[in-house]
Amino acid sequence: MNKSVFRNLSYGVYIITTMDGDRKVGCTANSAMQITSDPATIALSLNHENYTNSCVAKTKKFAINILSEKSDPSLIGTFGFKSSKDNDKYTDVKYKMIEGVPVIEDSCGYIICEVIDTMETSTHTVFLGKVTTGDTLDKAPAMTYAYYHNVIRGTAPKNAPTYIPSEDDKKPEASSKVQWKCGICGYIYDGDVPFEELPDTWVCPLCSAPKSAFEKVS
Amino acid sequence: MNKSVFRNLSYGVYIITTMDGDRKVGCTANSAMQITSDPATIALSLNHENYTNSCVAKTKKFAINILSEKSDPSLIGTFGFKSSKDNDKYTDVKYKMIEGVPVIEDSCGYIICEVIDTMETSTHTVFLGKVTTGDTLDKAPAMTYAYYHNVIRGTAPKNAPTYIPSEDDKKPEASSKVQWKCGICGYIYDGDVPFEELPDTWVCPLCSAPKSAFEKVS
Repeated sequence: MNKSVFRNLSYGVYIITTMDGDRKVGCTANSAMQITSDPATIALSLNHENYTNSCVAKTKKFAINILSEKSDPSLIGTFGFKSSKDNDKYTDVKYKMIEGVPVIEDSCGYIICEVIDTMETSTHTVFLGKVTTGDTLDKAPAMTYAYYHNVIRGTAPKNAPTYIPSEDDKKPEASSKVQWKCGICGYIYDGDVPFEELPDTWVCPLCSAPKSAFEKVS
Repeated sequence: MNKSVFRNLSYGVYIITTMDGDRKVGCTANSAMQITSDPATIALSLNHENYTNSCVAKTKKFAINILSEKSDPSLIGTFGFKSSKDNDKYTDVKYKMIEGVPVIEDSCGYIICEVIDTMETSTHTVFLGKVTTGDTLDKAPAMTYAYYHNVIRGTAPKNAPTYIPSEDDKKPEASSKVQWKCGICGYIYDGDVPFEELPDTWVCPLCSAPKSAFEKVS
């Protein structure tokens, strides 16, 4: 089996938000799809290890915040690659509360769902959500996982279904230029300014990790 | 609720193939996503009205054929918008049999699955498939539903979860040029040659419907 074919399935980039008591939580996800149109239902897959999974299971409510190509990519790092259990991910994020769940403003739209069924797998729960409300917030095209991977040059965390170790760990496309990779989120820096000359205050544009989290990959 | 936000969820364009006894069947679908990575499983949603749904339920085996931006878009019309119950969809399609199911050659890859679980909804079955094999067939980028809708200018059939009547039935973007819409698959013709001057043998590039199936929309 050639597992790299899995990369050819198309996904969006979403921030899934819900509540943990009175704490706002959330995580980055790719695996969501509409199942029925009337009433509208959506299937969402979350890893058992995601703290947000257990919170959705309790509240039976979640919002899918749909990132666009113009959304700040640091949202992906803010909500991915670390756990809501130990982090307040909303410190620098603009949001509004709708139907009791946080809706992120820097997106092209949101869909709020009430969980009506679940399917368990070895590592992930598939939540079937009945849509209770939703709206578009921006006309920019939705960000696809391919755009995130090819244009923003990000990778998937190890508990994502789309994570492929053999591909993600190899060095990026051949280039004569030295490239640096973020050890937290996998973001590849290959800007025109040599990495060493970036100011010490520079942080990963995807996950806000400091310069020291980067390592040379070519 | 603003249902147009559902358009911001990202999908691919897939041909789902399986067998009906010794007959090859299949349909066009958008809703497939990877759920777990090891063992790899994939969730696929098919409408109850799709004949292919009942065949997958019986054979417990299906292939996801992933269309690329270079795949012949007429495959979408050949496998969509009509039923495998009454049509042999493989007459003009190049395929090879792998693990007992047809694999379409004009794609960027295929994934073959064995059904291990299902979740029922009011109109669709979500099949959970364990991947048995798969391979890439071409390096062209996978076709997204957005590409199909915006570049190829196709629409969704009425039994697709992504079908939105109020949007699909309205006329396309304002244009001073007269546009023609295929009554079978919704393809919009707005080529430089006036529609009336196309030869009588011209057919819809998406579903092969004759010129007479088109109607003026602007």
